[in-house]
Amino acid sequence: MKDKRYGRKIYLEDKPRSQALQELLDAFTFERVIEKVPTPEALGRITAAPIYARLSQPHYHASAMDGISVIAEETYGAHEQNPVQLSISNGQFIYVDTGNPIPSPFDAVIMIENVHVVDEDTIEIIEPATPWQHIRPIGEDVVTGEMLLPQGHKLRPVDLGALLGGGVFEVPVTKKPIVSIIPTGNEIVSPSIDVKPGEIIETNGTVFAGYVTDWGGAPVKEEIVKDNPDLIRQVLLTAAEKSDIVIINAGSSAGSKDYTVHIIAEIGQVLSHGVATRPGKPVVLGKIHNTVVIGLPGYPVSAYLAMEWFVRPLICEYLGVAEPEREKLTVKLGRRVISNMGSEDFVRMNIGYVNGQYIANPLTRAAGVTMSMVRADGLLLVPAESLGLEQGEMVELDLYKPLKVINKSILFSGSHDLTIDIISSQIRSQDINRQIISSHTGSMAGLMAIRKGEAHIAGIHLLDPDSGEYNLPFIKKYINDQKLVLLRFLKREQGWIVAKGNPDHVHSVNDLIEKNLNFVNRQKGAGTRILFDHLLKKANLSSESVKGYQREMFSHLSVAAEVKQQEKSVGLGIYSAAKAMDLDFIPIADESYDLLMTASFYESEGGKLLETVLRSKEFKNTVEQLGGYKVIQDFQPYYI
Amino acid sequence: MKDKRYGRKIYLEDKPRSQALQELLDAFTFERVIEKVPTPEALGRITAAPIYARLSQPHYHASAMDGISVIAEETYGAHEQNPVQLSISNGQFIYVDTGNPIPSPFDAVIMIENVHVVDEDTIEIIEPATPWQHIRPIGEDVVTGEMLLPQGHKLRPVDLGALLGGGVFEVPVTKKPIVSIIPTGNEIVSPSIDVKPGEIIETNGTVFAGYVTDWGGAPVKEEIVKDNPDLIRQVLLTAAEKSDIVIINAGSSAGSKDYTVHIIAEIGQVLSHGVATRPGKPVVLGKIHNTVVIGLPGYPVSAYLAMEWFVRPLICEYLGVAEPEREKLTVKLGRRVISNMGSEDFVRMNIGYVNGQYIANPLTRAAGVTMSMVRADGLLLVPAESLGLEQGEMVELDLYKPLKVINKSILFSGSHDLTIDIISSQIRSQDINRQIISSHTGSMAGLMAIRKGEAHIAGIHLLDPDSGEYNLPFIKKYINDQKLVLLRFLKREQGWIVAKGNPDHVHSVNDLIEKNLNFVNRQKGAGTRILFDHLLKKANLSSESVKGYQREMFSHLSVAAEVKQQEKSVGLGIYSAAKAMDLDFIPIADESYDLLMTASFYESEGGKLLETVLRSKEFKNTVEQLGGYKVIQDFQPYYI
Repeated sequence: MKDKRYGRKIYLEDKPRSQALQELLDAFTFERVIEKVPTPEALGRITAAPIYARLSQPHYHASAMDGISVIAEETYGAHEQNPVQLSISNGQFIYVDTGNPIPSPFDAVIMIENVHVVDEDTIEIIEPATPWQHIRPIGEDVVTGEMLLPQGHKLRPVDLGALLGGGVFEVPVTKKPIVSIIPTGNEIVSPSIDVKPGEIIETNGTVFAGYVTDWGGAPVKEEIVKDNPDLIRQVLLTAAEKSDIVIINAGSSAGSKDYTVHIIAEIGQVLSHGVATRPGKPVVLGKIHNTVVIGLPGYPVSAYLAMEWFVRPLICEYLGVAEPEREKLTVKLGRRVISNMGSEDFVRMNIGYVNGQYIANPLTRAAGVTMSMVRADGLLLVPAESLGLEQGEMVELDLYKPLKVINKSILFSGSHDLTIDIISSQIRSQDINRQIISSHTGSMAGLMAIRKGEAHIAGIHLLDPDSGEYNLPFIKKYINDQKLVLLRFLKREQGWIVAKGNPDHVHSVNDLIEKNLNFVNRQKGAGTRILFDHLLKKANLSSESVKGYQREMFSHLSVAAEVKQQEKSVGLGIYSAAKAMDLDFIPIADESYDLLMTASFYESEGGKLLETVLRSKEFKNTVEQLGGYKVIQDFQPYYI
Repeated sequence: MKDKRYGRKIYLEDKPRSQALQELLDAFTFERVIEKVPTPEALGRITAAPIYARLSQPHYHASAMDGISVIAEETYGAHEQNPVQLSISNGQFIYVDTGNPIPSPFDAVIMIENVHVVDEDTIEIIEPATPWQHIRPIGEDVVTGEMLLPQGHKLRPVDLGALLGGGVFEVPVTKKPIVSIIPTGNEIVSPSIDVKPGEIIETNGTVFAGYVTDWGGAPVKEEIVKDNPDLIRQVLLTAAEKSDIVIINAGSSAGSKDYTVHIIAEIGQVLSHGVATRPGKPVVLGKIHNTVVIGLPGYPVSAYLAMEWFVRPLICEYLGVAEPEREKLTVKLGRRVISNMGSEDFVRMNIGYVNGQYIANPLTRAAGVTMSMVRADGLLLVPAESLGLEQGEMVELDLYKPLKVINKSILFSGSHDLTIDIISSQIRSQDINRQIISSHTGSMAGLMAIRKGEAHIAGIHLLDPDSGEYNLPFIKKYINDQKLVLLRFLKREQGWIVAKGNPDHVHSVNDLIEKNLNFVNRQKGAGTRILFDHLLKKANLSSESVKGYQREMFSHLSVAAEVKQQEKSVGLGIYSAAKAMDLDFIPIADESYDLLMTASFYESEGGKLLETVLRSKEFKNTVEQLGGYKVIQDFQPYYI
């Protein structure tokens, strides 16, 4: 149901991001609230004022040694030839342990090792003491009135120790700004495994809340609100009253159901609607009374980025701390990045350290929306005035992962296989900083990635129809100037993936056409597609006669998911994918799935670890449990 | 009371730190406990297993646009000259919004902008649709069965979104290891402002708990336990039963009251006692059943470092994550660092970016025990086989602060004045990343620091007795090859700091000697000491006749604290210090306290900000409220 009042189409601005932020910051004067928190509970909080010591540390003259405390003057002249005797009963010394107070008139400590005990009352020394030796004077560490910490300081464990020692048992800290998060939308539902077509599980609110927590704010997640302007208005007004910042998601764009901007204009003020960025453009920045209201788009990546651009600076401004910065890295672009003139483009990138340089590539299409933020190693900003960046250009990225992890990552390209996840997991359990970053690009693309030095390993299963041989003919044809190694570790079954019970009785490629079934195909260059084309050719059929041939899926699992979803459809793929989706599988052929790599990678630490995993019992067991696989453990590395 | 059973002196080993750690890790097989946590509450937790998607994302074919959904085949042939009409009632199309499901048999979406509405039932198009255009197919983002995250992954906000979208509403995470912290010692008391001489406020336990929290463990702080072996044994046994790691503090050394090692040997096993490090040597590493027990020294810096060396790796091992690493920086040593052969020396350092290079110096004596960890910019490790490092050597440090903050820090050296804290605080409130790092070294040392390029600004008040002039004669004498600027912004009163009511009637330097009072002196090179020497000389008195002359305090506040503590004692210093300690003040003279800096610093961004603060009303008001100061705001920068 569309609400007529808000049906008017409006257009988004293309305001520069920095301008939108500055206007937002200028429009508010936050009234910071100070709260006193017991020092032991103040870890990670931000000091609201400079903190001064209320106690000196030590707060008395303390012995720094186990020994006796004496009046230095009375020890002058002590010498091996002229020992000096001191007596307790005459008040000439007392025994002290480390940390004991030194009472007046004593002014020095002699270590117990240098004291000769004569009797219960008397000791003898053969060296004089200098005044104040082995005494930690009052205030040596901290003096009452001294500034312990400035304002705007994030309290670390060591700071809490200094505060307690300095007699500050409660710290004035800035209250965490309250950030209310309002998910809206008729299609949005709470998490449930029985979600229906058309329903979307609410995920953005949880991500926003996580960001707010990480940045030092206090998130408040509201219930999901239907697309009803009156409801939305009411919720916004209530939230604005109790919050420092309100985030409403989504409805921030300019469609017929995008009420946000109209409602904010009605009950408050719109500062910006639309920023010149891709993604992230449809953002509303506004205020209701003195509360910031931010409307974020529903598309997760846009919303996440806009959180960093606008919500993080506001929280840091409120807390009086500097905005954290991500680590930066200069990388070489493995592929061209095309960009739009007039808007900043933000591109999620994978980064690998290959052949002595950092190579970054935009995440492949197969990496989807939310997963692209999970998988990204870094983020590339292409400035508004640029039309794009060329392959080979050196660019600076913001890192999403520690450089140490990136340095050790093994870049995988090529054909998707479920064993790759298992290899990655087992490598990681041996070396916590090493992981496989996989791009499911298909076998041919994997081969090319090795040729271009963009990947460490490629998973390939390329059938040469003439020889019936797998992989080697292709490698020899396309790469001839590199020393390579092929690990032939895996045989797997390819077959028809069909609905449970194989209701359409699929057994050959002819069945597809005769029964007018929908074929779920793979992308160009995928080994499975090459196999399918080979089957077509053998049966003397043309691809045009295959329904669905043009559409491309990027992994076995996607093919199986599609078969599961769509009636009268068939895929070609591996047994484990069919099994994962609870489908039936009609085997056609065993094929070789090999790992190709440069000899130098094979001989590196990462390569050795990979080989260890491939030869491990645990790996064989895990993979063969999936079904449809035969792991070859006594393979010989094949040098090409 | 010493316990005879444990009175035997034992000696500490000098075991290399890496060996001690390896033996510790080898001695344990942690049984990780997995717990299931609702995904929205799992931020920052560590995955205990690889996580696979239970739902595809999208979990249905979803429209990517507002428009109509059609059967592509039926649109073929549509052209400007040959529009195609489609009808709802004939089942040829339906209206869809972004996110709506595409029901079978529809297989394409046409954007609403390209649809001409003929009537309620009919639309017309002039362009064909290609199959699957503007549809987000099932599993485009995530496919059921796909690995979302590996094990040992720390959950970020974006990960939570991917998990929820992938139908994972509860995540298996590794339970936080329980780390019990047991403070021991007869002298240790809970925080109280009325702490008595000989009592020490418990601070280490809070710092340890903070570390454990930061590293992902669950700290449990036990009550303070007296130095009684039976009690300690009982508490250790109870804690070992319920914890993964037990930390006991202190009693880890080899003194007569250091029971820890004996008790652990009795009820468990001692793996190491003493590591070859300074500080940090007296550490006990052991086990009780399968629980790690670590005895840490009482000296805070030793204990904090030992936490990082031994407790952090254990927690990371338990969680299955990589140990975090501090950022590193290569710096030039401003001073020589002497070290002990045979043990690793850890030196807390200040770092400044001066004249285009990073200069690091060991923290000065005035920075005490707990404050030294608060103030340190970095930590220098001098290897066991080294006798020290020379001035000017390039060394790598672990950073304790972000490089951005270090880059902007203003290094202050010279005479202590309370206004320096105020300047720092006001600079910070203007630029959150800029702070003053101050070394209270005295006026002469400040002058030298400028000469050697080790500081940006020096606070000096050096009276030239011959001319009666402040500072200029000294600067001209000691520096003649640099372009300098002197900011003459402050006059302050120097005077006698005496007990409340001036019971000893101190009015001149003669009174000190006649009444045999204890004089609380400042360190060599301090402007106040030079003033005192000048007073002695004018009165024709020798320093030997002054009781206490040899002992050195490093700040006005320390002098005042000492006068407060010690009967019949007198100090020389500034009014504000006397006031802070609630003492009386007998003024002697007004002196000039000036800031000296290089012209290049004065003209830099940091210098300009400093000048802005010095000329601000807020600064003048805050300083003059302290009393004893006159702020000069219309000073002319004096170029030398």
